[in-house]
This record gives sequence, C-alpha cells and structure tokens, in this order.
Amino acid sequence: MTDHQTRVTRVAVYPGSFDPITQGHMDIVERAARQYDKLIVAVLNNTSKNPLFTLQERVELIQRVTQHLPNVEVDSFRDLTVNFVKSRQADVIVRGIRSVTDFEYELQMASTNNKLDESIETIFMMTNPKYSYLSSSIVKEIARFHGPVNDLVSPEVEQALRAKYSPST
Amino acid sequence: MTDHQTRVTRVAVYPGSFDPITQGHMDIVERAARQYDKLIVAVLNNTSKNPLFTLQERVELIQRVTQHLPNVEVDSFRDLTVNFVKSRQADVIVRGIRSVTDFEYELQMASTNNKLDESIETIFMMTNPKYSYLSSSIVKEIARFHGPVNDLVSPEVEQALRAKYSPST
Amino acid sequence: MTDHQTRVTRVAVYPGSFDPITQGHMDIVERAARQYDKLIVAVLNNTSKNPLFTLQERVELIQRVTQHLPNVEVDSFRDLTVNFVKSRQADVIVRGIRSVTDFEYELQMASTNNKLDESIETIFMMTNPKYSYLSSSIVKEIARFHGPVNDLVSPEVEQALRAKYSPST
Amino acid sequence: MTDHQTRVTRVAVYPGSFDPITQGHMDIVERAARQYDKLIVAVLNNTSKNPLFTLQERVELIQRVTQHLPNVEVDSFRDLTVNFVKSRQADVIVRGIRSVTDFEYELQMASTNNKLDESIETIFMMTNPKYSYLSSSIVKEIARFHGPVNDLVSPEVEQALRAKYSPST
Amino acid sequence: MTDHQTRVTRVAVYPGSFDPITQGHMDIVERAARQYDKLIVAVLNNTSKNPLFTLQERVELIQRVTQHLPNVEVDSFRDLTVNFVKSRQADVIVRGIRSVTDFEYELQMASTNNKLDESIETIFMMTNPKYSYLSSSIVKEIARFHGPVNDLVSPEVEQALRAKYSPST
Amino acid sequence: MTDHQTRVTRVAVYPGSFDPITQGHMDIVERAARQYDKLIVAVLNNTSKNPLFTLQERVELIQRVTQHLPNVEVDSFRDLTVNFVKSRQADVIVRGIRSVTDFEYELQMASTNNKLDESIETIFMMTNPKYSYLSSSIVKEIARFHGPVNDLVSPEVEQALRAKYSPST
Repeated sequence: MTDHQTRVTRVAVYPGSFDPITQGHMDIVERAARQYDKLIVAVLNNTSKNPLFTLQERVELIQRVTQHLPNVEVDSFRDLTVNFVKSRQADVIVRGIRSVTDFEYELQMASTNNKLDESIETIFMMTNPKYSYLSSSIVKEIARFHGPVNDLVSPEVEQALRAKYSPST
Repeated sequence: MTDHQTRVTRVAVYPGSFDPITQGHMDIVERAARQYDKLIVAVLNNTSKNPLFTLQERVELIQRVTQHLPNVEVDSFRDLTVNFVKSRQADVIVRGIRSVTDFEYELQMASTNNKLDESIETIFMMTNPKYSYLSSSIVKEIARFHGPVNDLVSPEVEQALRAKYSPST
Repeated sequence: MTDHQTRVTRVAVYPGSFDPITQGHMDIVERAARQYDKLIVAVLNNTSKNPLFTLQERVELIQRVTQHLPNVEVDSFRDLTVNFVKSRQADVIVRGIRSVTDFEYELQMASTNNKLDESIETIFMMTNPKYSYLSSSIVKEIARFHGPVNDLVSPEVEQALRAKYSPST
Repeated sequence: MTDHQTRVTRVAVYPGSFDPITQGHMDIVERAARQYDKLIVAVLNNTSKNPLFTLQERVELIQRVTQHLPNVEVDSFRDLTVNFVKSRQADVIVRGIRSVTDFEYELQMASTNNKLDESIETIFMMTNPKYSYLSSSIVKEIARFHGPVNDLVSPEVEQALRAKYSPST
Repeated sequence: MTDHQTRVTRVAVYPGSFDPITQGHMDIVERAARQYDKLIVAVLNNTSKNPLFTLQERVELIQRVTQHLPNVEVDSFRDLTVNFVKSRQADVIVRGIRSVTDFEYELQMASTNNKLDESIETIFMMTNPKYSYLSSSIVKEIARFHGPVNDLVSPEVEQALRAKYSPST
Repeated sequence: MTDHQTRVTRVAVYPGSFDPITQGHMDIVERAARQYDKLIVAVLNNTSKNPLFTLQERVELIQRVTQHLPNVEVDSFRDLTVNFVKSRQADVIVRGIRSVTDFEYELQMASTNNKLDESIETIFMMTNPKYSYLSSSIVKEIARFHGPVNDLVSPEVEQALRAKYSPST
C-alpha cells in the first residue's frame, strides 16, 4: 500500500463565456491540463448577455479544438460557479489574466467564490504575452469585417466565424 | 497496479524575501500546501538588498511557523529562480498577488521565467482581502516604532521583531 | 458667546445607485456619519439603467438599515449631483473607493463636479478591505442563484432580494 | 533634384466616435496636426452603439470646429481601422490617452492593428492634464441636465447639445 | 445652551515628507483647511530617506507658505502616524491622491492605520488635475538643472531651491 | 520650387538610461526611425544611479547595434530632457510604454516636459507584446547568474554582459 493510493484525483474547472474560444484561451487550457488530472472547460450559460454562438455551438467548438487533450472535458452550467465546481467533484477554479482590468475583476470573483466556499481555490495563470491583447470580442470585431483571424483562433473556430458573418446567412 | 503509481509527485516552490514572513505569506503557504504534494518555501539570498533578518534567521523563522504543515520544506537559494526550481525537481512557482502593482511585477517575472524555461509554470493565488494591505515592509515599519504586530505576524516572528528593535540590542 | 455659534452645520451627501445597499456601502455610511453633522444618502434616479429595485424600494431599504443612525437622512435625485448637493445646503460629496477601476471613475467624477462648482468638495474613504470585493452586482448575481448573501447585506436587504428572486414572483 | 522630393507625404488618421467632439479631442487634433502633413479625423460608424448625434452630425461638427486647421480633413468609416487607414494612403493611427483604463484598451487595439498590418504604426499622445477627466459621455450627462459645458466643448458643439436636449425637441 | 457647545473641535493631520512643499500639496492644504477646524501639516522625520531639505527647513518653508491660513499649524513627528495623530487630539488623516500608484500605496497605509487604531479615519482628496503630474521629486529634478519651477512651488520654496542648487554653495 | 522645400526636417529624440539597450528598446528605435527624418538615441548621464555600463560603454553599444539604421544617431546628455531636445534642433520626444506603471511615470514626465516647453511634443509607442516583460534590469539579473539572454539583447550586448559578469574580471 503506497501513499499514492490515498491521493485524490485533482479536478479543476476553467469557466468562461468562450464566445468563441480563442488561442489565448487555448494557451490556458493546454497549460492547465498539464497541472491537473482532469480539466473541465465550463461554458457559462449567461442569459443576460447576447452571445454570437449558442451555448451548444460554443460547447461543440471547444470539444473539437480540445480533442487532442485526453484529460480535458467540456461542460456548461447555469448556476453559481462554486456550485458547479462542487457538483463536478472539483475544488479548483482556473482563470487566465491578461491585464490590470482583468486582474481587478478576477480578484473580485475569487474573493466572492472564497466567501461562498472556502474549500474551493482559484488559481491564476498569466496569459502568454503574445496573446495578451486577444479577446473573443476582438476576434468577433475582426471577423465581422472579414479580416484575418487565423492566428487568433483555431481553424474550426475561424470557419464557424466565417459562417456567422457570411453575407448569405 | 493502479494509475496512481504512474503519477509524479507534484512539487511547487514559493520563492520570496520573507524579511520576515507575514500572515499574508502564511495564507499563501497554507493554501498552496493543499494544492501540491510538497511545497518548498525558498528564501532568496538577494545580496543587493539590505535585509533586517539574516538569511539564516529568515529560514529558521519560516521553519518554526510552518512546522504544523508536514509537506512544507524551507530552503534558500542564490540563483535564477528557474534554476533553483529545476534543481529541486519542482515544476511550479507559486506567488501571491495583492495589488495592481504586484500584478505588473509578477507578470514580468512569470513571463521571464517562462522564457527561460517553458516547462516551469507560475501559478498565482490572490491574497485574502483581509491581508491585502500587509507587507514585510509595513510590519517592520510598525515594529520599529514598537506598534502592535500580533495580528500581522506569527508570535515567533513578533518576538524576533521585538528583539531586533529592542533599545538594548 | 462662543466661536461654536459661528460654526456652520456640516452636511455631506453620499450619492449612489444602491441597487441594493450592501455592507460595503453601510461601512461608508457609518464612518461618514461620524465625520459630518448630517449625512444624506442620495439615491440616483438613473432612468438609463435597468435597476432590480425601484427607486422607492431602494430608498425604503436604506431608511430601514440606517434607522440606528440619527444624523443620516435618505433622499433621491434626478439631476446633476452638484445641483442636488447645493439644493440640500450641503457642500461635501462622500464616495467610497475599492479598486483602481473605481479610482479612475471617481477621479473623473470629482474633477467634473469641481469644474461645475468649486465650492463643493469630494471626499473619499477607502472601503474596508474585507468588503473590497463587494458590489451590488455581485450580491444580485449570488441572490439570483439563491446563494447565501447574509454576510454581504443587511437582513432587510436579504429578505427583499429573496422576494425578488423567489420562483413564485 | 533634392532628397525632399523623395519624401512621402505623412498622413495620419485620428479615429474615434466623437459623439460629440470635446476640447480634449481638439487638444489631440491640434497637436497631431502639427506632427503630420495631413491629419484625417475619422468618425467610426459603429452601428452597435446608440449615439446621440448621427454620423452626419458628428462629421459636420468636427468640420466646423477644425476649419481653422488647413491640413485636417474629416471622414467616416465602417470597416476595420487598418483597412480605412490604408484606403486613405495613411500609415499612422493617432490616439490620445487619459487614464490607465484608456491605456489598457488602447494597448489592446494597437496590438491588434499591428497584428493585422505591421506597416501601420499607432502613435499615442497623453491628453493635457486639464482635460484628463473629460469624455463625450461626461459632456452629454452634464448637457442632459442643462449644466454648463462651455469649457468642455466648442461653441458649435455646445449649441448642438442644447438643441438635442431642448425640452421642445 | 445649544447643541453647538457639545460639538468637538475637528482636527485633521496632513502628514508627508514635503521635501519641499509643492503647489500640489498647497492645493490639498487649502482645501482641507476649509473642511476642518484645525489642520496640522506634519512633516515626517524619516531618517532612512536622504532629504534635500532638513526637517527644520521643511517645517519653516511650510510655515511661511501657509501663514495666510489661520487654522493651519505645522509640526513634525518621528513615530507611527496614528500615534502622532492621537497625541495631537486629532482623529482624521488627510491625504491627496494623484495616480493609481499613489492609490495603491495610500490604500495600504489607510488600511494599516485603521488596523492600528479604528477611531482614526483617513480621508482622501483627489489632486487637482492641473497638478496631477507634480511631485517634490520632479521639482527637485528641474531645479537641479536650473529649470523654471515658479508655477510648481511658492516663491519662498523657489528661492530655497535656488540656494540649494546654486553653484557656489 | 515645390512645397517639399519648405518642409522642415523632422528630428526626434529617444532618451533613456539604456543600461544596456535591449531588444525592447531596439523595437522602439526601429519603428521610431521610420517615423522621423532623424532619430537621436540619447543616453541620460544620471549620476545618482549606479549603472552597470559606463556612459561611454552604453553609447558605443547603441552605436554598434544601430549602425544598420542610417538616420539614427547616438548622443548623451546631462541636463533637462527638453533642453537637450532643443539643443539638437529636435521637437519630439519618443518613449515606449510597456505597462500601467510605465504609463503613470511617462504621463508625469510628458506633462512636466510640456509644462517646461510647450513646443516639444512627446510621442508614445506601445512596446511589442512579445517584449512587454523585458527591461534592462531583468536582462542584468539573468546575465548575473549566467542565464541565456540571446533573445533579449543583441549579440554585441550579450558579449558585453558576459564580460561584465565573467568570474575573472
């Protein structure tokens, strides 16, 4: 009997809107997947926002661009983040930070979630500087005017953006 | 034979000056110790700064205030952080963030370390808001004028500060 | 005849949306009430936002949670803040600051109000670190999913939030 | 034949919403007009926002307040900024920065535009401190309540604001 | 007998290095003097810094430039700020804020002082935008190269700076 | 006779400590050299700092790494920046910005210089995100521990750093 057998599986949740998932998100997914036994990318079903992609489309796009990562699952939720995290037997929330504005919002969220459930830890990773300017909003703005987004998103996402902003649809 | 046996031990390093260790540092140590199999608190031997406590004193103070945490070790180094991390078979650097000023410095350090060794990940935890104003400098400033530091540091550190700032020594 | 008789009564205004009032707001109300002879908590009737509570509900909630503070009045306004301040014979605006993002917005507002009326001073208090993450938006987000808000708002506000987010209404 | 003849005309674009143009914008226009052979003030036709002034009104107001600047042109566009810049044979984008919040947004935009077209440079000027608090939103908020805006905008813009917020219209 | 007689005299302390006092400091002094019955400008005797002006010179310069303000006193201290404030029967600390960097430092100080003595309140005023760039360091840097500082400091301070940086002394 | 003949030569100054020049500085030099007829890289002879490289060494290193840029000159100064700029018949100061901390310092400098001489304009360029973490201090820290700096500085600078930190010297 080794101490390995007493170790619990480490499960982390990476929550977000992912409308759509960018290479900046993918950088965090790939690095976080190496840190935990399982990483659940969890799409927030925020009905108050008006997303470009439906919840189902966003989940499917993430599934396609993360299929090379065996310990990554994709899910969605419409609840407090801490409730979702517990329901999935996870105890870590992963978030990327790009900027000071991000930092202040994330600090607020992490403090709130810690207040709601002290057993859940929020872990931050700094976004790679080469993606520091990148956001789903920027990607949509460029795609809307048919500009090049191939360095900013995966080919699957690029194709989905083209379909959304195609003149005929 | 289970898959547990193939899992590597997760070792993280929490580097800093710790001149001296505060309750804000302790909050990060305790939370990080729950995230990793082993946490090495590593005191930077920065000869260009003029510390209040010697390297040996800082290491001993941390050893005493972390002795209830079985998976925490204390060490010191005088090298690039990534070199020390590798020499200890660790692959994660843990850092706490309190403020925007912290954030920019930490982003710079994490990007530099990632450039020096991509296999080493830097993980950030937000300092508990109740310790957000706390720093080793603030603690020393208060202790220098014999003000109360009992909520800001452990009793062992409080006693060491009193000895340093005692009139007779 | 003493110089006391020549002193004017000091009246300050604490303007905001208060949708609803949180313990972070209450911290500022209680501290500001000690600084001035009279403190007027003034609810901004901002028709361009879509509040959860009506203006009347927000005023009544503040009246109930501040009834232990004899020198606190509650009022509402739909005008430039400086005009309201003057109409109430006040000359100080009180604001709390939690974060860098707050700071930049508040600096803009204070400079604008100083430009509109130099005789009106804006005074800032730093929010207690333990409430630094707290906002009306966070409270509503938690209440919407029936999470615990008892540490974040007064019991009266908690009950009002429950009524708003109750399934039957 | 001198080397002057080989020098290209330097054309810069100052893009923005200008809803309406303020004295803060004018400070940048006048300083940028001294830096380049031609400066094109370009009104973004952003259909997702709900401006107070129509695109045509905004263009005409800028034309009137810049008519004393012979090398300033006014134009409008509905495209990626870099595409508009190239279509006008310009290679510089000029932007003013007032605050940290501005800075982070502008850094994101400049990085995006550099990614889209490396030959286009973004040049920043710090807004004069006396206009650091000024924005089109602040101006509209004051004008909406019939407050004084004469130090914040040109007389032409002041008159246009009065017409918009006049009770009879 | 009126309620005026029960009112305590409001005394505030404006602490700082004032090496030397600038027009930015004077803006805060004049505005704070209108807010309190008495304002004590208190020069910190910080032996770890290497000031240009001696403690005595700094106190005398402030006395000369504030002599038109009858309710302003000048003092110096070498202690925790809260101890000095209590020793002078004051209960308010006044500080000016110019920038985000200032804000984070001031938040740290205010939280520390509140921790040391909850009965002492820190009140912040935003520096007038026209002085937002001004600091004692900038003034000294300009004076060192014999540049013009007449808009940045009072005539008395200008003369003192000239004497310090005069070639013959 | 064309209007080209009336156009003045545009000369800009890029001031800094350059101890030593990094690839982040080089990015600004190369982009600024395309914006102006002549760019003077000007090394500040700041006697209060304790540089690694002498003024002469810093000037020579910059000359070597900029020799492929025909319109770039290298100079040094020990004066107010605006005085140096005027003495060289320039009217533009160029600065790079990497971060919020940079931004606040640069805003202070640009406002001061504008106050000292309104005819001199300060122009900012955002540092390429891939160099956003880079500073002369970071480079020296890595070189001191014999870490790799080949992606951070030019080969000439790398060699100079090795010589400085070589055990035998």
